[in-house]
Amino acid sequence: MPKSYEIEDCPVARTLDLIGERWTLLLLRDLLLHGARRFQDFQESLPGVAPNTLSARLKTMEENGLVTRQPYSERPPRLEYVLTERGWSLGPVVKAMRDWGLKHR
Amino acid sequence: MPKSYEIEDCPVARTLDLIGERWTLLLLRDLLLHGARRFQDFQESLPGVAPNTLSARLKTMEENGLVTRQPYSERPPRLEYVLTERGWSLGPVVKAMRDWGLKHR
Repeated sequence: MPKSYEIEDCPVARTLDLIGERWTLLLLRDLLLHGARRFQDFQESLPGVAPNTLSARLKTMEENGLVTRQPYSERPPRLEYVLTERGWSLGPVVKAMRDWGLKHR
Repeated sequence: MPKSYEIEDCPVARTLDLIGERWTLLLLRDLLLHGARRFQDFQESLPGVAPNTLSARLKTMEENGLVTRQPYSERPPRLEYVLTERGWSLGPVVKAMRDWGLKHR
């Protein structure tokens, strides 16, 4: 689990506890844009991330109920990541960041 | 300067390069809520942050054109932090996080 901001009565801090770690928001961006993503898809779109960091972030997102894994192949068995309803509900946060980034180059 | 995500064509990554460091978004929250803030105000609202971390974050925000310092006392000379127009324009990002945090307790 990531380090909490430990500011219990602040809704901004509560959101940051879930998505404030480095790379998590960009994983969320990829999943919002593309729907299902395999591990290697994340590696291709985020070449700066070490695989163990990527694994750790996805595991935390899964523990926090933002993503889940589903099979996309039986032989060999393969899993891909998809957003849960809770994960999809973070769309407006990513959109607000995208809107700002588009306006401020 | 914080470590860049180095994903130049992504507006989300560009926004994160400015506000993605730990604590920066909560400093932004305080300034959006209260307008001008003194250094000790931040220390009071964010007791978990080391003073040197707080200084470093405020300095980076100043370098990135998000905050500026203005005098609020001449004797002794004292400065307080205020948002620039560019800093205020990040309001919708903080609001989206706040809205999410209020809905998901």
